[in-house]
Amino acid sequence: MRYKAVISYDGSNFSGYQIQPKQRTVQGEVEKALSKMHKGLRITVHASGRTDRGVHALGQVLHFDSDLQIPLDNWKRALTAILPDDINVKRIEPVKDDFHARYDVIEKEYRYELLVDDEPNIFLRHYKHHVAPPINVKAMQEACKYLIGTHDFSSFCAAKATVKGDKIRTVYAASFLEKNTGLIFRIAGSGFLYNMVRIIVGTLVDIGYGKLKPEDMKKIIEKKERKAASKTAPPQGLYLYQVKYDE
Amino acid sequence: MRYKAVISYDGSNFSGYQIQPKQRTVQGEVEKALSKMHKGLRITVHASGRTDRGVHALGQVLHFDSDLQIPLDNWKRALTAILPDDINVKRIEPVKDDFHARYDVIEKEYRYELLVDDEPNIFLRHYKHHVAPPINVKAMQEACKYLIGTHDFSSFCAAKATVKGDKIRTVYAASFLEKNTGLIFRIAGSGFLYNMVRIIVGTLVDIGYGKLKPEDMKKIIEKKERKAASKTAPPQGLYLYQVKYDE
Repeated sequence: MRYKAVISYDGSNFSGYQIQPKQRTVQGEVEKALSKMHKGLRITVHASGRTDRGVHALGQVLHFDSDLQIPLDNWKRALTAILPDDINVKRIEPVKDDFHARYDVIEKEYRYELLVDDEPNIFLRHYKHHVAPPINVKAMQEACKYLIGTHDFSSFCAAKATVKGDKIRTVYAASFLEKNTGLIFRIAGSGFLYNMVRIIVGTLVDIGYGKLKPEDMKKIIEKKERKAASKTAPPQGLYLYQVKYDE
Repeated sequence: MRYKAVISYDGSNFSGYQIQPKQRTVQGEVEKALSKMHKGLRITVHASGRTDRGVHALGQVLHFDSDLQIPLDNWKRALTAILPDDINVKRIEPVKDDFHARYDVIEKEYRYELLVDDEPNIFLRHYKHHVAPPINVKAMQEACKYLIGTHDFSSFCAAKATVKGDKIRTVYAASFLEKNTGLIFRIAGSGFLYNMVRIIVGTLVDIGYGKLKPEDMKKIIEKKERKAASKTAPPQGLYLYQVKYDE
């Protein structure tokens, strides 16, 4: 039986999502927990995609196969009880045998949280990226519109990334939400290149500070080279928010 | 020259405030930072009081003596730069030679943050104590009034504590503030016994759940024994909020 699980995790104390020897990873912890539930049997977990060290998830999606005979209601409780307290199971449900958490994705949404305040806040240091005011939110908001649509996003792909196929992706929505001292960037698309959201945020922050103009976003996209865009924003503000499937 | 410093810290990764061999402590980190600024000279720091493992501070007050000849404006910046990113210097200023961060306290305020939600929130696990609804805030609010005034708070002092002198303290204010899913308990007083705020919160939560009545708070105080009160609430919701001096 194949299962789909929606999990959230606090990325602060993980060396990223993907399993690695001698590192504490999300995949490693989930597989260890599932193995305990299956009397030591190795259960391989497939995710919608990786997240980097320090990046969080509110709606990461996984799939795995299991022959365990327990009522569906107990699955979530049992797995949550074994998992460490920085991973939470939001939902778990049986799916069709050919469901694939990575190949079947039709849309992903990321959020990036900024703290706009004179001083950094030590309690938010793992959860928001601090930027000092004044920052021109209107200019950042305006720059977002150039991201929407189908583009070659080479300028927003980490130079070291090895991408199979092209770098053309479709962004369905990109905008900022203001909330007191919080500024939340929301971006939804067909898929994202390595570090794409963080490089976009780094560029948007430069636009907010007036180092670049909103319309420079269009030029940067057209240049199709990493060095055209700004620095990669740090991981702690980034959340994999939601993954959608054609169900 | 004697200096007074107001600091905040995230208690999550400290073995409490007080210096201890081979443990990461707030005092240890502050003294290490000051020692670096003073070319290796040992600088002893005095705090308004200790905080336990996992307890946070928004306004802990320290004093120390220094002969360093640097402009006052540079003090905060220099110390902050050396300190780890879970300690922040909010203010630093010269004070009279006989100022004492502990002996001169006239009032302390603590806050305790509760998350009232069906599910725990992994991102707040170090910062709020999770309680599931329904919880009767009105009953908790009503119970607060019995705390206000001068009482022998023996019922709210950890059994293992060795207290010099009596256990009579004056509570000036105690109340709950509601904020969406957040519930903040604020308590200000002349001084607090070991674990006093956390035992009070544990008792108030029992009142909120109907295990005790609001007027039981009065009876618990009158019993003057630890076992009359409820379990100690966990450290992660507690913040040393403010310390006042007669200045």
